[in-house]
Amino acid sequence: MVRSFYLPVSGAPCWDLDIDALKQAVETKDGLLWVSLEKPTPQEMQLYLGDIFHFHPLAIEDSQSVGYQTPKVDDYEAYLFIIAHALHPNHDLASFETSELNCFLGSNYVVTSHLAPEMPPVQTVWKRMQRDERLTHHGADFLLHAILDALVDEYMPLIDQLDEEIELLEDAIIENPRQPTLTRILALKHSTMNLRRIIGPQREVMNRLSRDEYPQIGARSRIYFRDIYDHLVRIQDLVESIRDLISDALSTYLSATSNRLNEIMKALTIVSTIFLPLSFVAGVYGMNFQYMPEIPWEYGYVMVWGIFISIVVGMLTYFKRRGWF
Amino acid sequence: MVRSFYLPVSGAPCWDLDIDALKQAVETKDGLLWVSLEKPTPQEMQLYLGDIFHFHPLAIEDSQSVGYQTPKVDDYEAYLFIIAHALHPNHDLASFETSELNCFLGSNYVVTSHLAPEMPPVQTVWKRMQRDERLTHHGADFLLHAILDALVDEYMPLIDQLDEEIELLEDAIIENPRQPTLTRILALKHSTMNLRRIIGPQREVMNRLSRDEYPQIGARSRIYFRDIYDHLVRIQDLVESIRDLISDALSTYLSATSNRLNEIMKALTIVSTIFLPLSFVAGVYGMNFQYMPEIPWEYGYVMVWGIFISIVVGMLTYFKRRGWF
Amino acid sequence: MVRSFYLPVSGAPCWDLDIDALKQAVETKDGLLWVSLEKPTPQEMQLYLGDIFHFHPLAIEDSQSVGYQTPKVDDYEAYLFIIAHALHPNHDLASFETSELNCFLGSNYVVTSHLAPEMPPVQTVWKRMQRDERLTHHGADFLLHAILDALVDEYMPLIDQLDEEIELLEDAIIENPRQPTLTRILALKHSTMNLRRIIGPQREVMNRLSRDEYPQIGARSRIYFRDIYDHLVRIQDLVESIRDLISDALSTYLSATSNRLNEIMKALTIVSTIFLPLSFVAGVYGMNFQYMPEIPWEYGYVMVWGIFISIVVGMLTYFKRRGWF
Amino acid sequence: MVRSFYLPVSGAPCWDLDIDALKQAVETKDGLLWVSLEKPTPQEMQLYLGDIFHFHPLAIEDSQSVGYQTPKVDDYEAYLFIIAHALHPNHDLASFETSELNCFLGSNYVVTSHLAPEMPPVQTVWKRMQRDERLTHHGADFLLHAILDALVDEYMPLIDQLDEEIELLEDAIIENPRQPTLTRILALKHSTMNLRRIIGPQREVMNRLSRDEYPQIGARSRIYFRDIYDHLVRIQDLVESIRDLISDALSTYLSATSNRLNEIMKALTIVSTIFLPLSFVAGVYGMNFQYMPEIPWEYGYVMVWGIFISIVVGMLTYFKRRGWF
Amino acid sequence: MVRSFYLPVSGAPCWDLDIDALKQAVETKDGLLWVSLEKPTPQEMQLYLGDIFHFHPLAIEDSQSVGYQTPKVDDYEAYLFIIAHALHPNHDLASFETSELNCFLGSNYVVTSHLAPEMPPVQTVWKRMQRDERLTHHGADFLLHAILDALVDEYMPLIDQLDEEIELLEDAIIENPRQPTLTRILALKHSTMNLRRIIGPQREVMNRLSRDEYPQIGARSRIYFRDIYDHLVRIQDLVESIRDLISDALSTYLSATSNRLNEIMKALTIVSTIFLPLSFVAGVYGMNFQYMPEIPWEYGYVMVWGIFISIVVGMLTYFKRRGWF
Repeated sequence: MVRSFYLPVSGAPCWDLDIDALKQAVETKDGLLWVSLEKPTPQEMQLYLGDIFHFHPLAIEDSQSVGYQTPKVDDYEAYLFIIAHALHPNHDLASFETSELNCFLGSNYVVTSHLAPEMPPVQTVWKRMQRDERLTHHGADFLLHAILDALVDEYMPLIDQLDEEIELLEDAIIENPRQPTLTRILALKHSTMNLRRIIGPQREVMNRLSRDEYPQIGARSRIYFRDIYDHLVRIQDLVESIRDLISDALSTYLSATSNRLNEIMKALTIVSTIFLPLSFVAGVYGMNFQYMPEIPWEYGYVMVWGIFISIVVGMLTYFKRRGWF
Repeated sequence: MVRSFYLPVSGAPCWDLDIDALKQAVETKDGLLWVSLEKPTPQEMQLYLGDIFHFHPLAIEDSQSVGYQTPKVDDYEAYLFIIAHALHPNHDLASFETSELNCFLGSNYVVTSHLAPEMPPVQTVWKRMQRDERLTHHGADFLLHAILDALVDEYMPLIDQLDEEIELLEDAIIENPRQPTLTRILALKHSTMNLRRIIGPQREVMNRLSRDEYPQIGARSRIYFRDIYDHLVRIQDLVESIRDLISDALSTYLSATSNRLNEIMKALTIVSTIFLPLSFVAGVYGMNFQYMPEIPWEYGYVMVWGIFISIVVGMLTYFKRRGWF
Repeated sequence: MVRSFYLPVSGAPCWDLDIDALKQAVETKDGLLWVSLEKPTPQEMQLYLGDIFHFHPLAIEDSQSVGYQTPKVDDYEAYLFIIAHALHPNHDLASFETSELNCFLGSNYVVTSHLAPEMPPVQTVWKRMQRDERLTHHGADFLLHAILDALVDEYMPLIDQLDEEIELLEDAIIENPRQPTLTRILALKHSTMNLRRIIGPQREVMNRLSRDEYPQIGARSRIYFRDIYDHLVRIQDLVESIRDLISDALSTYLSATSNRLNEIMKALTIVSTIFLPLSFVAGVYGMNFQYMPEIPWEYGYVMVWGIFISIVVGMLTYFKRRGWF
Repeated sequence: MVRSFYLPVSGAPCWDLDIDALKQAVETKDGLLWVSLEKPTPQEMQLYLGDIFHFHPLAIEDSQSVGYQTPKVDDYEAYLFIIAHALHPNHDLASFETSELNCFLGSNYVVTSHLAPEMPPVQTVWKRMQRDERLTHHGADFLLHAILDALVDEYMPLIDQLDEEIELLEDAIIENPRQPTLTRILALKHSTMNLRRIIGPQREVMNRLSRDEYPQIGARSRIYFRDIYDHLVRIQDLVESIRDLISDALSTYLSATSNRLNEIMKALTIVSTIFLPLSFVAGVYGMNFQYMPEIPWEYGYVMVWGIFISIVVGMLTYFKRRGWF
Repeated sequence: MVRSFYLPVSGAPCWDLDIDALKQAVETKDGLLWVSLEKPTPQEMQLYLGDIFHFHPLAIEDSQSVGYQTPKVDDYEAYLFIIAHALHPNHDLASFETSELNCFLGSNYVVTSHLAPEMPPVQTVWKRMQRDERLTHHGADFLLHAILDALVDEYMPLIDQLDEEIELLEDAIIENPRQPTLTRILALKHSTMNLRRIIGPQREVMNRLSRDEYPQIGARSRIYFRDIYDHLVRIQDLVESIRDLISDALSTYLSATSNRLNEIMKALTIVSTIFLPLSFVAGVYGMNFQYMPEIPWEYGYVMVWGIFISIVVGMLTYFKRRGWF
C-alpha cells in the first residue's frame, strides 16, 4: 500500500496524490511531502523510489532486501538514506523480531518504506498528523524526528518485560534449579545480546543525525535528534543492567545446582555413616563362633542396643558440631 | 516548593522574590540569581522554567520526566542544562536509589529543580549561603560548583558502607557458605555495577564543564569543576576496587562450597572404606556352612577381633599418609 | 593459467592477449584491462607482475607467499595492492579454509592473482563479463568491486551452516552431554574465532577503499565499496551472534553434565538411605543372642516386616517432600 | 619538619633558610630552590604553600587531604602541581600501602610535601644532593626528575616479592589445595589489581610531563621524564604478567580441588564395588533356609572363598583396565 | 667483541676499522658504516657509544641494562635509538627467553649492540653482507630493515612449535586428564601471554618506523618497514589463535575431569543400587525368628534366588533405559 500527503507552501494539504501530482510536488522542492510505502510490491518500489524520486540503486536495493541490515545513515548529497529497526515482541519474549524502516530525507520530503505488514511508529505518526496538522509545520526533518521518536519509544515495553521475566526466573532458580530454567535464561541472554547489538548502531545513527552537519537537517532540529540519542543511551544502560542480572542469574543457577548436590551428599553421608557402623555391630553378633562370651550373656541384647544408641547419638552430635544440619 | 534568592550588583540580597521581581532579575542579566524548584507541580515548572526563563521545551520535558535520565550537559547557547544524580542509600545497601538534580546555568543565574522530596546537596548549599554570603560573590558558575561538589560528596559514605559489608560477607563465606550469602553478594554486585554506570557519565559531565569552553563558566572556575572531576575519578577507582572484592568473594564462595563437598565426601569415604570390609568379615563368620574350621576354634572370636582392629588401623594409617586428616 | 581481457576506449574487446598486446594495453593507460593469474607458476608471476606491470618486489613477494597473509590495502601510488580472503568450507564445517586473492588496481587495469586452484568469485565475475559486457563499462574500480562483492557473498552460506549446526548441537547437549559433543563445540568455536579474525581486517580494507581518497577509485564508485563494507558489518554481527550461541552451548554443556551428576547422586542416595536402615534391622534379628525377646515371639516376623514397610514409606515421603522426585 | 635548600645563580648554596630568605629566593625567580615539607602541621602548610609560594587553594587542599588521591598533573600556569604515589610494602605483602608525594614545580623551585612520616625517595635525593652538588646544576625540572625516578625505582622490589610469593603458592597448591591458600592468592590478586590501578595514572603523569609542552620543563629534560615513563611501562608489563600468574594459580587451585574430589571418590568407589558384592555373597550363606544344598556340602566354605577371591581379582582387573590406578 | 664495516661513497669497503678510522667515517657523514657490539664490556660500550658516536647517556644506559626493556623507538634528532627483542626458544618451550637488540640508526650508520652472547639475526645479516655486497647499496635504513626482518623471521618457528605442542596436549587431555597436563597447559599459556606482550610493542615500533617521517628513513624504505609490520600483525593473529586453543584446552580439561567423576559415580551407583537390595533380602532370611514360614519351606532357597535375579535384571533394565550404559 502506498499513502502520500502533501502540504504546499500555500494552499490546502492533499492526501493520496497520483503519480503526476507526486512528480510535481517533488520538483517544486517546496512544502512538505510524505510518501509511505507499506509492504510495497517490487513494482511499486521501482515506480516510487526509482522513477519518481530517482534514488540511488544501492539504496533501493537495501530497501528491498529481506535479510538483516545494520542501522545506518548514508549521505547521497541530495538526500539522506536511513535504516532504523523497529522491535516486535513475540509472544515468547526470548525471541523478539526486528523489522526495518527505511527512510529517505530530502529537503522537502520524507519517504518511508517497510516490508513488514505492520509498522506501528509510522501508523502512529500518520494518525497524529491527520488529527493535528501542526506536526507538519516544522519541515521534513522534524517529521522524520517524530517517526524515529515513536520507533524508539516502542523499545521500552520490551525491555521492561525482559527485566520482569528475569526477576521471576531468579526466584524460580533458588527454589528449584532445573535445566529448562537454564535454557530459558540462556534464551533471554541471547535475546538481550541481540538487542544490544541493534541499539548500538541505532544510537550511532542518532548521534550522526544530531551532530554531523547534514543540509537536510536544520540546526534547530538537531537538538531533537539529540533527544532520541539520549533516550537510546538510557535504553542501552538498561540493557547493560539486564545483562548483569542475567549473568547473576547464571551464577545463582550454578551455585544452586552445586548446593543441591551438597545437600544430597550430606543426606547420603549422614545415613551411611550412621548405619554402616550399626550394621557392622549387628553383623558381629550374627557370627556363629562357638566361643563368644556375649552370646549366652543375659544382658547381651540390652548391651548391643546400648551400643546402637550411643553410635547414633555420637554421630549426630558430631554432625551437629560440624554444622551439617 | 519554590525558593529564590537574588543578589543585585549593588544593593542588599533579596529572598523569595515574587514573579515580577524574578522576571526583572532575569532581564537585568546582572547580579546572581538562584531559583530552587523543590518537588514542583507541573504548573510551577511551566511557570518558572517556561514563562519566566523561557527554557527549551526539551529541557523542560527532561526536568519533568520521572524515569531514569543519563547525566549530561546540553548546551542551549544562552544557558547550559545539566542533569546530575544524587544518591540516596536505602536501609538495605544493596539497592540505593538515585534521584535527578536538573540544573540550568545562565550567565547570571542558577536554576535547580528536583522531583524528589529531599535533595540534601541543594539544602546544604542553601543553608551555607544563608550563613555565609561570600559563597555568592564568585558568580553563578561557582555557585553551581558548590552544589555539584556537595552532591558528589554524598557518594563516599555509600561506597564506604559497600566496602565494609563486602568484607563482612567474605568472612561469613569462609565460615559457612550458604545460598543467602551468595544472593546478597550478587545483590551488592548489581548495586556496584549500577553505581559504576552512574559515575561514568557524571564524570564525563564534569570533564566537559572543566574542559569545554562554555561562556557560562569562567576560566577561573573551570579548575573547580576539574576538582570535582578528580574526585569522581577517585570514586571510580574505589568502585573498581569494590568490584574486584566482589568478584573475589564469588570465587571464595564457589571454592568454599566445593571444599565443603570435599569434606563431606571425605567423611563418607572414610566411614565406608572402614566399615564395609569390617561388615564383610563379620558376614563371613555369620555363614552357616557346616564345615568351617574357624567356627568351633576356641580363639576364633579373638582372631576375628584381631582382623577388625588391623583393618581399622591399616585404613587410618593409609588415610593419614594420603593427607586426608 | 593466465586469462586476460582488454576493452579499448574505442573498438572491440579482445580476449587472451599475447605479451606484446598486453604491454601495449598497459602503456595506453586507457580502456579497461583485466589479467587473471590462476595458480600461476613462479615464472608466470615474474613475467606478468614483474616484467609487464612492473609491480613492487614486496607486493610480488606477498602474492607468491603460500602462508597466511592478513587482508590489507597497500598504496603504491601508481596502483593499489589489495589482499582479500575467500572462504572455502570443508566437508567438515569446523575447519573451513581460506585462500588469498591478490588484486592490483591501476587506473585502467585490474590484475587478480591466486595460488589456490579454485577461486569461485573470480570465475563468477569472469563468466558474467563474458555474458554481459555492461559490467566493463564503468571502469577498473567498478570491476574490482564486482569481484570483491562476489567474494564476500560467499561468506554467508558458511555462516548459515555454522548457525544451523550449533543449534543442532544445543539440542544434542541437553539430551546427552558427551565429550565428543564438547570437542565439536570447541572446534566450531575455534572456527568462529578464526572467521572473526579474518572478517575484521577485511572490513577495514573495504572501509579504506570507500573512505580514503585513492585516485584509482572514483568518487562515484566509493559508495559501492561502502556497500561491501556494510555487508561485512552485517556478517560480523552474525558472527558475534554465533559466538554467543557457542558460549551458551558451553554453559549448557557444563550445566547438563552437572545435572547428570546430580541425578546419579540422587539415585544413589535414595537407594542407600532406604536399604542401609533396612539391612540394619534385618541384621539385628540375625544376631545370635540367647536372650532376645522378639525371636521366640509369634508375631516377630510380621512386626519386622511392619518396620521394613514403615521405613520405606517414611523415607519416600521425606524425599517427596524435599522435591527429589 | 621543613627542610630547604637554595643555590643562587652566583654564590654559595644555603641550607635551611628562614622565612624571609625563602620569600626573597622565590621572588628572585633565579637559582634553584627546594623546600621539602615532611609531615608538616596544617600551620606549616598554610605558611609555606599559602603565604610564601601563594599556591592555589585547591592544590593546598589536595596536599592536606589524608585520603587517597589519584596521581595527576595540574597546570596552574606559573607552576605545575604533581601528585605521585610512593609504595610502602607491609610485612604482609598482600597489603602494601601507598603514600602521596605532592610536588610543585616552578621555573626555579621544587616544593615537595608529604604527610607520611617517611618518604624514602625524597630522603635519598636530599642526601645525594648533600653529597654531590652536581645534581643541582641542571635546574628544577631535572631535580624533580631525580625525585620521581627514585620514587618509581622503589616499585621494583615489591613486584619482585609478589612474583616470588606467587610461585611459592603455586607449588603449595599442587601439593595441598586448602582454603587459606586460596584466601592468600585472592589477597595477592587484590593487591596486584590495586598496584595496576596506581601505576596506570602514574604512567600517564610521566607521559604528560615528557610530551606536553610545559614551560617549566625544558626540551632537554623531557627525555628524562620519558625514561621514567618507559620504566613504568616495563613495570606495568610485569604487573600484567603477575596478574596472569595469579589467574593461573586460581585455575590450578580449582583443578587441584576437583582432582582431589575425584581421587576420594575413586577410593570410595573401589572399596564399595569390591565389598558390597562380597558382603552379599556372605549374606546369602548366612540365610537360615532348611533346604540349602551348599550348606551341608563339605567344600562349600572353600567354594565361597573361591567366589570371594574371583570377585576381588575381577574387580581389580576391571579398574586397572579403566585406568583407575 | 666489536665488528665494523665501512663502505665509502667511492672506494673499496673496509672491515674491522680501528678507532681513528671509525671516528673519521662517522665524521664524513657519507657512505655506509655498520658497527656491531657483541657482548661488549662496559669499557667498549663507553668507548664506542659514548666517545665515538656521542650517543645520549640515557640511550647508552638502556643499552647496558641487563633487565627487561620494552621495545621502543626514541628519536634523538641526529639518530634513532631502537630496542627490539629477539626470541631464544629454550629446550622447554614453555619458557622461551628474549634478548634485546639495541640499534642506533644515523643518516649513514647503523650501530647494533647486544649483551646476549648470541644474536642470530645480526650474525645472519653480517654473513649475508660478506657474501653479497648488494645489501649495502641501499643505505643505512635498508640495512637496519634487513636486520629487523631477520629478527622477526625467528619468531615463526617458536610459534609453530607452540601450536604443535598444544595440539598434542589436547589429545592427551581427552585420553587422561591429569594435573601435570594442566600445569603444562598453564605454562604454555603463560608463555603465550608473554609472547603477546612482546609482539605488541614490537609491532608498534615497526608501525612508527614505517609511518612517522623520520629523516633517517627514506620514503622508499618505509614500505619495507611496513612489510615487517604486516609480518608482525600476522604473527599476532597466530598468537591470538594459539591463545584460543589454550583456552579451549582448559575447557576440555575441566570437562574431561568432570566427565571422569561422572563415570566413577555411575559405577559406584550401579553397584550400590544393585547390591544393597540384594544384601537386604539375604539379611531378611538370615534373621533367627522362630516363626518364619519361608524358612522350612522346601522351595524357599530357590525363591530367594528368583528374587535376587529379578532385582538384578530390573535394575539393569532401569539403568539401560536412563541411558547410563
